[in-house]
Amino acid sequence: ELQKKLDELHPADVAYVLEALPLDDRLLVWDLVKAERDGDILIEVSDAVRESLIATMDNRELVAAAASLDTDEIADLAPDLPKDVVQELMKSLDEQKRAQVESSLSYDEDSVGALMDYDFVTIRADVTIETALRYLRILGELPPHTDKLFVVDKDKRLTGVLPLKRLLVHDPEAHIAAIMVDDPVVFHPSDSASDAAQAFERYDLVTAPILDPQNRLVGRLTVDVVLDYIRAEAQEDMLSMAGLREEEDLFATVWRAAKNRWLWLAVNLCTALIASRVVGAFEGSIEKLAALAALMPIVAGMGGNSGNQTSTLVVRGLALGLINKENARRLLGKELGISLLNGAVWGSVMGIVAYLLYQNVALGGVMAAAMLLNLLVAALAGYFAPTIIARLGRDPAFGSAVLTTFITDSMGFFIFLGLATVVLL
Amino acid sequence: ELQKKLDELHPADVAYVLEALPLDDRLLVWDLVKAERDGDILIEVSDAVRESLIATMDNRELVAAAASLDTDEIADLAPDLPKDVVQELMKSLDEQKRAQVESSLSYDEDSVGALMDYDFVTIRADVTIETALRYLRILGELPPHTDKLFVVDKDKRLTGVLPLKRLLVHDPEAHIAAIMVDDPVVFHPSDSASDAAQAFERYDLVTAPILDPQNRLVGRLTVDVVLDYIRAEAQEDMLSMAGLREEEDLFATVWRAAKNRWLWLAVNLCTALIASRVVGAFEGSIEKLAALAALMPIVAGMGGNSGNQTSTLVVRGLALGLINKENARRLLGKELGISLLNGAVWGSVMGIVAYLLYQNVALGGVMAAAMLLNLLVAALAGYFAPTIIARLGRDPAFGSAVLTTFITDSMGFFIFLGLATVVLL
Ligand SMILES: [Mg+2]
Ligand SMILES: [Mg+2]
Ligand SMILES: [Mg+2]
Ligand SMILES: [Mg+2]
Ligand SMILES: [Mg+2]
Ligand SMILES: [Mg+2]
Ligand SMILES: [Mg+2]
Ligand SMILES: [Mg+2]
Ligand SMILES: [Mg+2]
Ligand SMILES: [Mg+2]
Ligand SMILES: [Mg+2]
Ligand SMILES: [Mg+2]
Ligand SMILES: [Mg+2]
Repeated sequence: ELQKKLDELHPADVAYVLEALPLDDRLLVWDLVKAERDGDILIEVSDAVRESLIATMDNRELVAAAASLDTDEIADLAPDLPKDVVQELMKSLDEQKRAQVESSLSYDEDSVGALMDYDFVTIRADVTIETALRYLRILGELPPHTDKLFVVDKDKRLTGVLPLKRLLVHDPEAHIAAIMVDDPVVFHPSDSASDAAQAFERYDLVTAPILDPQNRLVGRLTVDVVLDYIRAEAQEDMLSMAGLREEEDLFATVWRAAKNRWLWLAVNLCTALIASRVVGAFEGSIEKLAALAALMPIVAGMGGNSGNQTSTLVVRGLALGLINKENARRLLGKELGISLLNGAVWGSVMGIVAYLLYQNVALGGVMAAAMLLNLLVAALAGYFAPTIIARLGRDPAFGSAVLTTFITDSMGFFIFLGLATVVLL
Repeated sequence: ELQKKLDELHPADVAYVLEALPLDDRLLVWDLVKAERDGDILIEVSDAVRESLIATMDNRELVAAAASLDTDEIADLAPDLPKDVVQELMKSLDEQKRAQVESSLSYDEDSVGALMDYDFVTIRADVTIETALRYLRILGELPPHTDKLFVVDKDKRLTGVLPLKRLLVHDPEAHIAAIMVDDPVVFHPSDSASDAAQAFERYDLVTAPILDPQNRLVGRLTVDVVLDYIRAEAQEDMLSMAGLREEEDLFATVWRAAKNRWLWLAVNLCTALIASRVVGAFEGSIEKLAALAALMPIVAGMGGNSGNQTSTLVVRGLALGLINKENARRLLGKELGISLLNGAVWGSVMGIVAYLLYQNVALGGVMAAAMLLNLLVAALAGYFAPTIIARLGRDPAFGSAVLTTFITDSMGFFIFLGLATVVLL
């Protein structure tokens, strides 16, 4: 009966079930899935889970599964397939489809080309609505998500788009040219996928034509693919902020998962070691006044928290394209202002707490001053870390947190222990 | 000419320009925007920027701007408007619209009801396609995003949906009943918005009907609103992980922004203070061996990083509904296994480094053991912190990082300094 239940589920639901199952159960269920649905389901599961499923299939099964898919989906799957499977698969396709797969594979994974499909309906501008309706009835089926027809001339150049809505409400005698939209939002395969996603959000698009440099129609972008892209990017950012290099199968082997996390831990170990050497330089002071060792993590930690608030806002502002030369100084000024305010407030609080704990007025004063100074450092680090990483062409969502924390830790220890050495000892 | 350029921009583009401008410039541009576009633009800007614009408008302007909007949009705007403006606005609406606004406002902001609009076209099942086409031509216009008509009986109960595609490709003589989809995906106003968003992603929906408990059609959910919701949620999670209570205007006043950040800093100050008291308990040991002060932040920091990797995966798994009773123990086992492996590797590395730095074999051994133990603590904290927060009904994206870091810091200090005191002194 499990078999029957599975057969009734949407491929995306089967994918969800597979992702929530530990490896051995997952493979049991995967065996129950009808072979003709394998392709659709492989497309829906996450990369990590897809790998675990593909590993259990032989070449013949893989070719059969992939061959059942659209060409854009084959291209999505190909990087995860063994090389000989891809070769066999390509041989089995007709020339047009092979060209489509190859073209999809040729684009960068963060470009519009990688998200493109080839399912669209074209029409000429010089026919009437009535003719168009007859043509559609002959076609018998429209591709998923079709909300508009693409109007092209005899050289396949796009001259406009015709929303189905207009086709339905206008007089059958009207010509397409008269009712089409002649300045639609269009994309090119090399456009950035995240810019395109922003355009879909801003202009509330369902589908959009993709053109080559000669304005010839080459493909189509649809909102369901954009939605998946946005979700995947958001998840990637969230995972990479925690130093997970890629999405991880919840039930990955310990070894695979550890590899996913080592880079981050190694980088953090290095920065922690450097910060530790800053403390090491003041070991003489700490021997004389061990209270310093107890208080120093507070100075460093508050700097880290405050700096990461700033850097999160700056990362978001950079991602949305909201920060530019004109407003950058204002933004930095605001962040420094907040740090000054927070430094005054929380510095005073901690100064008093330190005094109460150790009955030492000078120690309280050092604590307050160090907190204030380190919060100012935090604002600078939180602003400049993502800005510089972005200018180097890397993703600030990844490196900003480590860099900011490194600076606030090291400087926090240095400022606090340095001030204490000068003032107290 | 700036005026002219603004008039040509899509409201969402004007919103983008306004968000990237510092407050004074922003208000200058806002003055140039034609009054009849104010409503559309207020809907598009972020909450924080919307507040700054509304603050400069008088009641008459606000009523006029809001009155130009659809009822679902009025409901989105209403919470940000002064009370007397809302009252005046409601008086100006006809009864049906007022009921729609009131109903939209009555739903929880994370429910489907809050995302619902009222722009749909209904049709009866017993008419032919030809009749339907004639009816649509009389309507003259279809609401944005219409990809299907909602088929209802005489009591407004939904009996199916008719994708426009089917309307176009089938024989005009066919009856709607014969070609409609009779098991469409439907929602209820009280459904969770994030579940609905997942359904839109899984089933690649563009619009879906919303029904009351008696299966009567009450509204519609569209993919553009779902897209905005997904983006907003992802941003909220990212901001809240850094302890920003709400989206912050990049050019907010220092005072407003500081208030946005205080709760987080206050909570972190408390946890840091407790961790500091753990260190304080070992001041005697630190006085004797100041190297402990230099090494202890490494043990705590590596625990924090590793723990937050685990908690990020668990938060994501909980959000996607992938973690359940059956697989929870496996997941915890995997995370403990990774910690054991990482603890052995990085613990040995740091043990050797500590030995090299201080020429003290026992100190190296304590370092290695403390790293290993604290990474195991980190796996437990990273697993249980989000699980418990979620079980208490709170958002684990918010509290998990503080709680995990608090545990790994305090326990890291305790394990390392405690071991050192027992073994070395
Ligand atoms: Mg199978
Ligand atoms: Mg991939
Ligand atoms: Mg497709
Ligand atoms: Mg693709
Ligand atoms: Mg939108
Ligand atoms: Mg809109
Ligand atoms: Mg990215
Ligand atoms: Mg104006
Ligand atoms: Mg609307
Ligand atoms: Mg609403
Ligand atoms: Mg989908
Ligand atoms: Mg799909
Ligand atoms: Mg949330």
